[in-house]
Amino acid sequence: MSQPIYDRVALIGLGLIASSMFWAMKRGGLAGEVTGYARSQATRDKAREIGLCDRVCDSASEAAEGADLVVLCVPVGAMGGVAKEIAPVLKPGATISDVGSVKRSVIRAVAPHLPDDVHFVPAHPLAGTEHSGPESGFAELYDNRWCIIVPADETTDHDAVRRLETLWQGMGANTDEMDADHHDLVLAVTSHAPHLIAYTMVGVADDLRRVTDSEVIKYSAAGFRDFTRIAASDPTMWRDVFLNNKDATLEILGRFTEELFALQRAIRTGDGDQLFDYFTRTRDIRRGIIEAGQDTDAPDFGRGAKKP
Amino acid sequence: MSQPIYDRVALIGLGLIASSMFWAMKRGGLAGEVTGYARSQATRDKAREIGLCDRVCDSASEAAEGADLVVLCVPVGAMGGVAKEIAPVLKPGATISDVGSVKRSVIRAVAPHLPDDVHFVPAHPLAGTEHSGPESGFAELYDNRWCIIVPADETTDHDAVRRLETLWQGMGANTDEMDADHHDLVLAVTSHAPHLIAYTMVGVADDLRRVTDSEVIKYSAAGFRDFTRIAASDPTMWRDVFLNNKDATLEILGRFTEELFALQRAIRTGDGDQLFDYFTRTRDIRRGIIEAGQDTDAPDFGRGAKKP
Repeated sequence: MSQPIYDRVALIGLGLIASSMFWAMKRGGLAGEVTGYARSQATRDKAREIGLCDRVCDSASEAAEGADLVVLCVPVGAMGGVAKEIAPVLKPGATISDVGSVKRSVIRAVAPHLPDDVHFVPAHPLAGTEHSGPESGFAELYDNRWCIIVPADETTDHDAVRRLETLWQGMGANTDEMDADHHDLVLAVTSHAPHLIAYTMVGVADDLRRVTDSEVIKYSAAGFRDFTRIAASDPTMWRDVFLNNKDATLEILGRFTEELFALQRAIRTGDGDQLFDYFTRTRDIRRGIIEAGQDTDAPDFGRGAKKP
Repeated sequence: MSQPIYDRVALIGLGLIASSMFWAMKRGGLAGEVTGYARSQATRDKAREIGLCDRVCDSASEAAEGADLVVLCVPVGAMGGVAKEIAPVLKPGATISDVGSVKRSVIRAVAPHLPDDVHFVPAHPLAGTEHSGPESGFAELYDNRWCIIVPADETTDHDAVRRLETLWQGMGANTDEMDADHHDLVLAVTSHAPHLIAYTMVGVADDLRRVTDSEVIKYSAAGFRDFTRIAASDPTMWRDVFLNNKDATLEILGRFTEELFALQRAIRTGDGDQLFDYFTRTRDIRRGIIEAGQDTDAPDFGRGAKKP
């Protein structure tokens, strides 16, 4: 086995992201000992049962103490509290990172608690499923996905940044660097606004009295089915995302509503050309995503069918 | 091989739906001879090249003449014109069907042209991919999907309805009956409104100057990526869907906008409880869809990864 990148890694929070990190680090021999902590006793018990982490601790401080890398894998709204709690035990020279979906508010909440002799290097792996909890992780989650590294400020130690990038690359991800505000805007477009929209559409379907739930479920071919997948994501995580990336999300939703009204008017007035032109333009983006290897072009959406 | 359900089937239009029907009918030995016609010479040439249809004809009338079942597989807006064209050659006692995504306007456009001695049994298979054209079809497209049969009116011959249902079941689908107005409302919820919303969101991303296209493409993890898949569907088909299911689509979009505004306000005012409750409720619908076998619960979205 090759030399681990960090001797001791602590994962605070043991959901989908942390458990996938654990399995990916084990797969690659990237860490010596990995400690873990979760707030709920049930999660800690489950982690011990399935061998998630080399050592599951009963407090965040116990897990973080002596670690060369501490990764906060808790909902965005809980990051500040955890940082405050573990700050006194952090090893000088350690790197503190996180996996939150928003970065400006995490930096604002976490940075003030940290001692000067640790390196704060926030990160955001762009990968997930609609599943959550300690049993949902798998080693391949990050393979060929992006992890955006967002150094807390210009003074962040370059070696600490590069070491964390190497870890993410070892877990299968491509890495990129970005500042926090730009990250939050990009994610509002590619993830946060789409999630709110999907949640909304699924809620509308559930409310509609003239269409039964069973009809919604039976007849959800492409379209709504993809929305329900998005709208099944972890409620706590997403509540925190929206509350913590408020400005960018509301800006994008405002733009979205404008465009939607324009298309609704085209439907109402029967302007087929406008609809056709709009739908033609959006096809190109899809092609780009497939070419970039971020989704499959399989015509059956992974249902396992084969062409004759 | 078992007895075919129809001796002669004509497919008018040779895109994803028709080509998948052809392969599914061949797989099941459900039809004797299958003729086909497409408006474009290039499509007809391609169909002949890949063996799509037993006989490719150079006019819709030639394909439809003598057929026991004629299936209109053209965009919703073109159904009326095709029906008018083939009406004079239809065999007495033949069944005319279609695969359009809206039913009331298709019935309104097609029925007046048909002679009294044919059976008009509209249908709508709820299956698709974002691909189109004669090469996009595959025999398994309809396996375990729903096909909604929408008899044109109360006088429709029961035997003709049952025979068409048997064909669809033979192609792998489950079948259900519904009246046209209810079909159009259900589909507005489960498919049409979600498609317009996805198109809109992808258009917004494309317009945003501060986020580059390459960023949108690179960082489109779950969320936006699913939207781009939906928004890559055939522009002509979807233009016609919206123009022909105007009332139900606009009603659902109105409801959607109301709900979206309520959630935007919750974000703006920081009402985390409202967001959390809403997101928790939408999870249940997803569970129902997985239990109904209409999507996979695989945590990797079919990317082929396995748990360790």
